[in-house]
Amino acid sequence: MTDPAVTVSEAGEAAVLEVLRGPGGPAGVDRGDGDLVGNGDDAAVLGAASATVVTTDMLVQDTHFRLDLTSWSEIGRRAVAQNVSDVLAMGADCTRVVVAVAVPPGTTMGQIADLADGIHGEAARSGAVVVGGDFTSATVVVVGVTAIGSLPPGARPLRIDTARPGDRIALTGDPGRSAAGLALMLAGHPDGTLQRTHRVPVTPVGSGTAARLGGANALTDVSDGLVRDLSGMMRASGTAADLTTATLPVDPLLDEAAVTLGTVGRAARVLDWVLDGGEDHGLLGTFPAGATIPPEFTVIGVVREGRPGEVTLDGVPRVPGGWDSARGPN
Amino acid sequence: MTDPAVTVSEAGEAAVLEVLRGPGGPAGVDRGDGDLVGNGDDAAVLGAASATVVTTDMLVQDTHFRLDLTSWSEIGRRAVAQNVSDVLAMGADCTRVVVAVAVPPGTTMGQIADLADGIHGEAARSGAVVVGGDFTSATVVVVGVTAIGSLPPGARPLRIDTARPGDRIALTGDPGRSAAGLALMLAGHPDGTLQRTHRVPVTPVGSGTAARLGGANALTDVSDGLVRDLSGMMRASGTAADLTTATLPVDPLLDEAAVTLGTVGRAARVLDWVLDGGEDHGLLGTFPAGATIPPEFTVIGVVREGRPGEVTLDGVPRVPGGWDSARGPN
Repeated sequence: MTDPAVTVSEAGEAAVLEVLRGPGGPAGVDRGDGDLVGNGDDAAVLGAASATVVTTDMLVQDTHFRLDLTSWSEIGRRAVAQNVSDVLAMGADCTRVVVAVAVPPGTTMGQIADLADGIHGEAARSGAVVVGGDFTSATVVVVGVTAIGSLPPGARPLRIDTARPGDRIALTGDPGRSAAGLALMLAGHPDGTLQRTHRVPVTPVGSGTAARLGGANALTDVSDGLVRDLSGMMRASGTAADLTTATLPVDPLLDEAAVTLGTVGRAARVLDWVLDGGEDHGLLGTFPAGATIPPEFTVIGVVREGRPGEVTLDGVPRVPGGWDSARGPN
Repeated sequence: MTDPAVTVSEAGEAAVLEVLRGPGGPAGVDRGDGDLVGNGDDAAVLGAASATVVTTDMLVQDTHFRLDLTSWSEIGRRAVAQNVSDVLAMGADCTRVVVAVAVPPGTTMGQIADLADGIHGEAARSGAVVVGGDFTSATVVVVGVTAIGSLPPGARPLRIDTARPGDRIALTGDPGRSAAGLALMLAGHPDGTLQRTHRVPVTPVGSGTAARLGGANALTDVSDGLVRDLSGMMRASGTAADLTTATLPVDPLLDEAAVTLGTVGRAARVLDWVLDGGEDHGLLGTFPAGATIPPEFTVIGVVREGRPGEVTLDGVPRVPGGWDSARGPN
């Protein structure tokens, strides 16, 4: 192992790539996963697949994370997690990951090793292996991940535009945890469960496949906020959705966070986190009558005919808040 | 079409993604390419493949290009081209591309449209379609591309570590054009054939497959410099290589460029461009006796037993110059 205090510009590209490559081993080593060529060649070559799921997403310093609030390992975990989440949202499991990393020249090899630990650790948690990468320099840290999954023969991918009137709407996890965690961090409370959730979302590994096997009509992941992503799914499907406050899952930690952050408007603040908080990366699906909704999903509403994209809460139209990547938070 | 002077922060993420998505059309439109789900969903779903080739690479402003010297369309073309090149280098053709883009908030929609034109134009030139993307903001422009190709049943991917003693070494294109073009641009000559080659390398579409069908033992693309990439291939293969100056292809434009740039040391300068200039993205292969070397390849040397990674020119060991992504140019 290189001295962790050595910078990437001192160590050179080959040493950095060796660290980023991680435990997968060099090209030519058969890792038993059916791949023909792994890391270290011009490209990876994956074995036969009946259908391949592909998605890409980039994490950018000062847009998605701050180096003073997030560890290098967390950056790696989060970059992988948010892409895995998109593969799960097609009703698939993630099997492979390729990673492109850009860092300033003064970044140390110890930081690169932490980043690699996060990337490989999260990939392993998701059941995936890292099969390729790219390394370059930039004035800010950028981690681009492409996640790949496969669907078994005949399996139907769970699209975003196939929700149908009458479907029940259901969600994994507790929305708003990431947003509440960020609010706590920005208010000077760096540590805690919600803060960890913000830094590294816990993707519901296996739940995309479970939704598919259970007979879901449509599935997406909640990255920009529950109402925004639900509205997007409804618009794509030409349908509308009705939510009820009483059925929304509200983690008690959100109430605690609101208390910590101040006494005015606590209930509204919690509801905003739940409805508009982004980056939880839970799965949001619609299930027709007769479908088996997996136990990790909570039913929060119903799909109906109506103005495409409209979402109501207790009968009142709700305008999406949440995150817009071009404009920032609304 | 949005007013091209509108900034991305004014137009919003949905409008930007619509432009980046290009002519491929929305999710749900069957484009006849066998894919189950295209752009606009959480992930793309590709049809059955016997083997899938995957590679990723990131272009970063002020590391790989300067906005005052490169158009937005050229950035898009180059980002796609350098990834396509890696797929070709496995002996495959590129079929799909996913793209992640980060730009400053003040970037205009006209610039995004130019970028999208470049991305989709280069993908089309390569025989590929863009099936997904991500958009976010950053202080610098970053374009991350993942290129995907497929190999027919039973086809052998062309690895970097399978060169054998006795193989002839052969190369497509004219190495050094990109480096000479950059030198001209930095010296205040922005326009010309070499400068265009630097801004957008012309990938040898079809030549990877041709090398595979011709019986090549090993193949890689020249991205960091001919000697550096050849040395890497030799090291991976446990072999050494001998080159001869007389057989190196030298584009007459390189001589002209050296004249333009000054009168001292012209021949050495041209040789440095040819041997150490990066980013030409030609294909470098080794062919055993009995192989059919495709006509677009020029034989430049031979593989032999020896110290792994050693490269000689006219019998004298040559230390790789070229580009190191962690250190910059050597």
